[in-house]
Amino acid sequence: MKTEMRLTGSGGQGLIMAGIIFAEAALLDGNNSIQSQSYGPEARGGASKAEVIISQEEIDFPKVEVPDLLLTLTQVAADKYGKDIAENGTIIADETVDLKAADPSVTIYRTPILKTASEVIGKAIVANIVAIGFITELTGIVSKENIENAIMNRIPKGTEELNKNALYEGYRLAQEIK
Amino acid sequence: MKTEMRLTGSGGQGLIMAGIIFAEAALLDGNNSIQSQSYGPEARGGASKAEVIISQEEIDFPKVEVPDLLLTLTQVAADKYGKDIAENGTIIADETVDLKAADPSVTIYRTPILKTASEVIGKAIVANIVAIGFITELTGIVSKENIENAIMNRIPKGTEELNKNALYEGYRLAQEIK
Repeated sequence: MKTEMRLTGSGGQGLIMAGIIFAEAALLDGNNSIQSQSYGPEARGGASKAEVIISQEEIDFPKVEVPDLLLTLTQVAADKYGKDIAENGTIIADETVDLKAADPSVTIYRTPILKTASEVIGKAIVANIVAIGFITELTGIVSKENIENAIMNRIPKGTEELNKNALYEGYRLAQEIK
Repeated sequence: MKTEMRLTGSGGQGLIMAGIIFAEAALLDGNNSIQSQSYGPEARGGASKAEVIISQEEIDFPKVEVPDLLLTLTQVAADKYGKDIAENGTIIADETVDLKAADPSVTIYRTPILKTASEVIGKAIVANIVAIGFITELTGIVSKENIENAIMNRIPKGTEELNKNALYEGYRLAQEIK
């Protein structure tokens, strides 16, 4: 079992941190993982991406080629990365993003990640944590115990409650659509 | 021109963040870069590593195989990663680390990165920024203008002076030995 995940949106949405948190949770689960981000000409266009591979086996090639799971938080990122998705893959898009899958085997979920962060939690900056909760509940790609441990290892002291609430709101959004 | 850099030490020393900062500075310089970290069985032994590739050309294979430049902040990391270094490569080790190069073409610099962070700056947590300053001054792998921009983009608000001082202390350590 190997899952390739691409997290896309705009710079400042904390997607690199989200990738690091997933990779560390996978390690705590006893799996192997690689987290990476590439910067090249395409990174100059306002879309940001971070990638994670999680596998029970050793990982040979560390770069995501066609993701099984794509998160896209902005229209710019969706337009840029939205078509690269594996057969039977899953796309998770913020509700503000307009997106169609070319391949009917792909499942798209649209959900209010950004709005939940800014209105329910009151801090737009935790959109990445809401997204982590949504992905974790929907896919089970990492355990809830270890995603929470990995988040607690990475966030600034004093923001534990805020981030836990954001994670739980992400779980809740996924429970509603499952 | 392509440089492969491996940053090693213990978890919590901010080496992933250092890698991200180098990769972003390289982008601002107009180069391509990839930053990655792998988590597998070897990550459970107390040593942490982050990798950066910086190139003027497109980067084909995103994983560092034998680094040109190795930073090692702890003895555990040096014992684990210290032998993997390219011919004519450069090792930058904290002064507390005991390290010999098997290959005489390798240059080793030992310098008080951890002590400078904790005693001169007064915050052990900025050791990664002192190391960034040292590497930047020594190698010129990224421009000083853009490493400073990349640091300012990534650090918490209110810590600008602290981090700038740490960067400049890193420059100074390298100027002393050049």
